[in-house]
Amino acid sequence: MYKIAVCGCGVVGSGVCDALLDQHEKLSRRFNRKVALAYVLDIKDLTGTRYAPYKVSDLDTILNDRETEVVVITIGGLDLAADYCFRALRAGKHVVTSNKAVVAAYGPELEKLAFSKERRFMYEASVGGGIPIIRPLNICLFANDITEIQGILNGTTNYMLTGMFKRHASFDEMLARAQRKGYAEADPTADVDGFDAARKIAILSSIAYGGFVDYRNVPCRGIREVAFIDHELADKAGFAVKLIAGSRFEDGKVYISVEPKLVRRGHLLSDVNSVYNAILTKGSYTGDTLFYGQGAGKEATASAVVGDIIELLGAPKAFALPDFAVKNATVLPDDRPCRYYIRMKSLKQPAAGALIDIFGDDTLCLFSKLERDPWEEGDPSTVSAVITPPFTAAELEEHVRGLDALGARVRMTMKVLD
Amino acid sequence: MYKIAVCGCGVVGSGVCDALLDQHEKLSRRFNRKVALAYVLDIKDLTGTRYAPYKVSDLDTILNDRETEVVVITIGGLDLAADYCFRALRAGKHVVTSNKAVVAAYGPELEKLAFSKERRFMYEASVGGGIPIIRPLNICLFANDITEIQGILNGTTNYMLTGMFKRHASFDEMLARAQRKGYAEADPTADVDGFDAARKIAILSSIAYGGFVDYRNVPCRGIREVAFIDHELADKAGFAVKLIAGSRFEDGKVYISVEPKLVRRGHLLSDVNSVYNAILTKGSYTGDTLFYGQGAGKEATASAVVGDIIELLGAPKAFALPDFAVKNATVLPDDRPCRYYIRMKSLKQPAAGALIDIFGDDTLCLFSKLERDPWEEGDPSTVSAVITPPFTAAELEEHVRGLDALGARVRMTMKVLD
Repeated sequence: MYKIAVCGCGVVGSGVCDALLDQHEKLSRRFNRKVALAYVLDIKDLTGTRYAPYKVSDLDTILNDRETEVVVITIGGLDLAADYCFRALRAGKHVVTSNKAVVAAYGPELEKLAFSKERRFMYEASVGGGIPIIRPLNICLFANDITEIQGILNGTTNYMLTGMFKRHASFDEMLARAQRKGYAEADPTADVDGFDAARKIAILSSIAYGGFVDYRNVPCRGIREVAFIDHELADKAGFAVKLIAGSRFEDGKVYISVEPKLVRRGHLLSDVNSVYNAILTKGSYTGDTLFYGQGAGKEATASAVVGDIIELLGAPKAFALPDFAVKNATVLPDDRPCRYYIRMKSLKQPAAGALIDIFGDDTLCLFSKLERDPWEEGDPSTVSAVITPPFTAAELEEHVRGLDALGARVRMTMKVLD
Repeated sequence: MYKIAVCGCGVVGSGVCDALLDQHEKLSRRFNRKVALAYVLDIKDLTGTRYAPYKVSDLDTILNDRETEVVVITIGGLDLAADYCFRALRAGKHVVTSNKAVVAAYGPELEKLAFSKERRFMYEASVGGGIPIIRPLNICLFANDITEIQGILNGTTNYMLTGMFKRHASFDEMLARAQRKGYAEADPTADVDGFDAARKIAILSSIAYGGFVDYRNVPCRGIREVAFIDHELADKAGFAVKLIAGSRFEDGKVYISVEPKLVRRGHLLSDVNSVYNAILTKGSYTGDTLFYGQGAGKEATASAVVGDIIELLGAPKAFALPDFAVKNATVLPDDRPCRYYIRMKSLKQPAAGALIDIFGDDTLCLFSKLERDPWEEGDPSTVSAVITPPFTAAELEEHVRGLDALGARVRMTMKVLD
């Protein structure tokens, strides 16, 4: 019998327990040996739930059971979950976790510990929920040199951005709606400020480029400044506004950021809507490969955890020390020239010709009829925007100064993902 | 040292050799043991190529080398490739193949043989080229009950359909173009009549639903009848025309087909263009998951083969006998009610009201201004089309009879994928 323990019976943990209980026949048939949920560790009272018979309150009960080979850590937060991962590995258990905070912060240490104990540390569920992405990167695409990853990695913000556009809604309206629906937490900072996506792109980049990317080095800008008018102007020009977690590997360095960007309609990421996630990878052999699906949610995330369990039951000795466990990446903000979207306000609509004089011939000028944004003096102001030719950030800054002469004030700047 | 033999140094085989030669350091580092190309078997003269030092002409040389654990079969065709797979497994080698014909025809026998020899038989590259799909189905999504697969699985026909629409071209023009570009063979039957896609959806369905789907039981209709006018009319109504290889699992039965269908714009498969492939799966836990990428080509397919090698070097004992190796699926054509697209010709444009009287209130009527399709008597004819409400095939047949009274003759019928 393969005995499995689940620590943390919250949303994801209870989903894992359900999958193990509901699919135990299918699992047992595959391994020709019973695969069974053995323990559920939680401080909550589980009386009356289907998990009650498995309940334990102490990790040591699990660690001391030599027959339990796999410990699933689905506790949220950082410190306790990390502590449990370390303790379980030290006790000679395989560890599977969905906790991205733990993986982003302690991935290298946990990988090294697992390797030294000849055990596996697995975390498919930490990025992209139910979307297979870690295993495809680790195995299927391993022959490739990966040069780029562009992802929509946070379902909450993608739900909000999609809703802002479709419902003509403001950030605040969509945040309230996401909170009512349970997509956003009471404190939405991790999602709306991009920190969640930063952890996920750091994890994927570490695996793909073979050097540890510390999530604290990921330049990170959320969606608080995005307004409905940005969606409207972007849409006129054939773009969608998305929170893009992206990285490139060039000359041994990782260029990375999380920020809202304009994505051309027709681009694979432009049609990823609502709570869905997608990850686009560029490989030296495969070119563009896209993985799309539910990036969060109890059942989808549980599916990914069970996928890890299946891999490791079949291959308990397939441990390899990933390069990122022993090497740090050089992480830099992405300063490649790119097109920019700049929204500005002014008392009088600037002439298109004047904007083109500032930014160059290939500038696209967008004007709005809305006068919703009062000028400081109380007069209604006009809103306009440009999509510029490619500039570096420094070049852009210089051109933007030219707007002063037109009496226009910059309110929002976003890069364009072409 | 892990010694690897490659049998068949054609497009895919030479790509595998290149990847093994170019990435041997990365591979060796991962396994802490040298991973090396040891043999290349081909009847061609390889003198002057980088493969010459490895060339052998006889499979037994490989099979008799006890140090060679992995045999890659990248020979095309059926009989010889299948024979090599059987012989290599019997000799106790792991086998990795990209040959879908072999997998579709002999998958169960080869899986059983591999299992009995405690070796692995792997074929990620047989479906979707460089797109990870077999491993995700086998491992990542295994906890799910998969209920549906919809795919664009043939790059040649997708290139042709995309080109017909964009270039206002005919089937024959695009076939000639695909042949010039090397996307289509001199005898294009396997691609344009859907037989290639039928093998692929049969392989995926066997894995996903746990019963062997014989590709010879897949109702199969290619794209020969699709005309530019179908793209034009479909586009007016917000649809793209795609060759869809799809299956559903319901009440223990597999409903399957390969046929051109109208795909609503906004559907994940509608924007898969040119030689790209995509596979959409519906899982009980994950909901919709999409895998997208290059469905063919030397390097992408080689990447998938090397992915298999990586998995099996890490997990040489992770053999499991899949359900489809011991159980046949009940395979039926898909007869669920669905909307239909019907293109017809007539001397006089039928009135929209008359068409709605025949097919029902929710009928969409599409008229073309083109008069390119001469009526038998030599008069110019008009082309029109309807998109009907959902019908079974039998119901549709009955309604179609009503067109006689309008003097309209049906020229093309396609299902709508909603």
